[in-house]
Amino acid sequence: MKRIKASAPAKVILLGEHFVVHGEPAIVLAINKRATVTVEMRNDQKIFIESKNIGVSGFFVNDEFHPQRGGERAREKLKPICAIVKEAIRKYNPGFGVNINIESSIPIGAGLGSSAAVSVASASAIFSIFNPKVSKDAIFKVAFDAEKIVHETPSGVDPAVSTYGGILWYCRSKPIRRLKINVDLPLVIGNTGKERSTGKLVAKVNELRRRYPLIVGKIIRAGGEIVKRSIRALREGDLETLGELMNINHELLRALGVSCRELEELIYAARKAGALGAKLTGAGGGGCMIALAHPEKIIDVAYAIKEAGGEVLVTEKTDEGIIIEK
Amino acid sequence: MKRIKASAPAKVILLGEHFVVHGEPAIVLAINKRATVTVEMRNDQKIFIESKNIGVSGFFVNDEFHPQRGGERAREKLKPICAIVKEAIRKYNPGFGVNINIESSIPIGAGLGSSAAVSVASASAIFSIFNPKVSKDAIFKVAFDAEKIVHETPSGVDPAVSTYGGILWYCRSKPIRRLKINVDLPLVIGNTGKERSTGKLVAKVNELRRRYPLIVGKIIRAGGEIVKRSIRALREGDLETLGELMNINHELLRALGVSCRELEELIYAARKAGALGAKLTGAGGGGCMIALAHPEKIIDVAYAIKEAGGEVLVTEKTDEGIIIEK
Repeated sequence: MKRIKASAPAKVILLGEHFVVHGEPAIVLAINKRATVTVEMRNDQKIFIESKNIGVSGFFVNDEFHPQRGGERAREKLKPICAIVKEAIRKYNPGFGVNINIESSIPIGAGLGSSAAVSVASASAIFSIFNPKVSKDAIFKVAFDAEKIVHETPSGVDPAVSTYGGILWYCRSKPIRRLKINVDLPLVIGNTGKERSTGKLVAKVNELRRRYPLIVGKIIRAGGEIVKRSIRALREGDLETLGELMNINHELLRALGVSCRELEELIYAARKAGALGAKLTGAGGGGCMIALAHPEKIIDVAYAIKEAGGEVLVTEKTDEGIIIEK
Repeated sequence: MKRIKASAPAKVILLGEHFVVHGEPAIVLAINKRATVTVEMRNDQKIFIESKNIGVSGFFVNDEFHPQRGGERAREKLKPICAIVKEAIRKYNPGFGVNINIESSIPIGAGLGSSAAVSVASASAIFSIFNPKVSKDAIFKVAFDAEKIVHETPSGVDPAVSTYGGILWYCRSKPIRRLKINVDLPLVIGNTGKERSTGKLVAKVNELRRRYPLIVGKIIRAGGEIVKRSIRALREGDLETLGELMNINHELLRALGVSCRELEELIYAARKAGALGAKLTGAGGGGCMIALAHPEKIIDVAYAIKEAGGEVLVTEKTDEGIIIEK
């Protein structure tokens, strides 16, 4: 029986969040925490989708999802996967059904692109079982379209980094660029576990800019300069400078009012334990922080973040986007 | 027996420290903590100088200081006063000696301009006993010259604010301006008690600017915009906006690397207790923070700063510079 397993990495914003909303570039990394989707042929025409991690499953029959486990929550959570399935059926009109099994080690709702990684891995596994030669570009497009269903006007950077891996340069209304940079980036991510609304935080910065256009405008441009300078540091493998730029970036995010005490505690702990740099990553107001550390300091930094109350993920940049195991 | 008592206020930098070194303006306030100097005629030609607060005293005779209490420390501490006495003798050649008694409630070495306040009050009392009609401008000049002996290239803003009181706008290589603003500014100052070197912190920022000229340049200009915007807030008596600008200013100072954990604790405590804004004041790296609060919140903010380990000074802006009591 035909079976395909595909995985796609999570992402982390290294530099430039929020400033990116205002026209400056951001740097996004693929990290080696992955969502894995296994698709296997069935003897019938049914399509069964399951995500054991979040306890949802159901059948997708005749363009309709019928929850088996998780009820309405299953319908909501699996909406992008159903969209991908629908698109695959429309395109390939296969003569068989499939079981789709989703597994992920990526924290959900923490700004690490869990949803995009699942969509990319799903699109990759589903499309590959019907067409082994499907391109990454085609998978990206399908996953991005699926993301549009769940997220309002997503930038596309999350599915792009999950598809292609590595380090992406992203600037609104410009093509996403994959930077050819060969550097190890040992990272520790600390999750505050505090929920936040990206939309509200983006609105908060907009409001601050409306009140203080000249001040906030200059802070945003300083954020853009940080990203530009960071590319040189990345190319030179200069982690000290990169760490320092992360620290400055974080303080500018504080100036925009998007940090919180919980993030500050983890960031302070990481810096004190010897991190080269530490900052919030993503929308702020909760969610995750990220620390860059020399390999020999990783354990110290991870321990310090844990002691300060964070859920820790030791990881590193990965150049592997989609991986397909037959 | 003739006797004159003069006092001069301490200062606090409201906005713009560090940025001011790089050509942007700063706002400096006189606060109602004062240094008081009493000068009384003696029956002999001797000049006796005493500061009970810091436990030093001595005689100034024939252009030489002879410590009575405090030894070399007395010589060092009273150097600017001796310079003022010398200048007064040169100018007025009086036929009598004086006792000069210095008292001050201003914390020393905390960035509150204690030294300038003492110099201004001393110059005021000493010159007034010889010439009751001496002008404030003349006193400022004498005190500023005395400050130059103890501080390397002082800006002159400290003796200016101690002389004239109120709110000063200061920008390097431009004349100091006294802003005509009629607003109550209830302030709580928290002293970390941590010593720091202004020179080292200024050098640290210079070095950061050398490494990242475009980033730091934009942060500095954002700091300048904060000061410009704050003048409107001050004129409108809009303390909410002023507080918010103080907060943003502080985060930019963090971006320059001049804050420290001790300051952060006091600042966080003040903001949490309802301060409209809180920031480090002066060089950073220790020293003092300043919080702006609605009058009904002053006690809460003061208590929170004390609980967080700070030495608290509840104060407010004063429009009174030199005060002379005959």
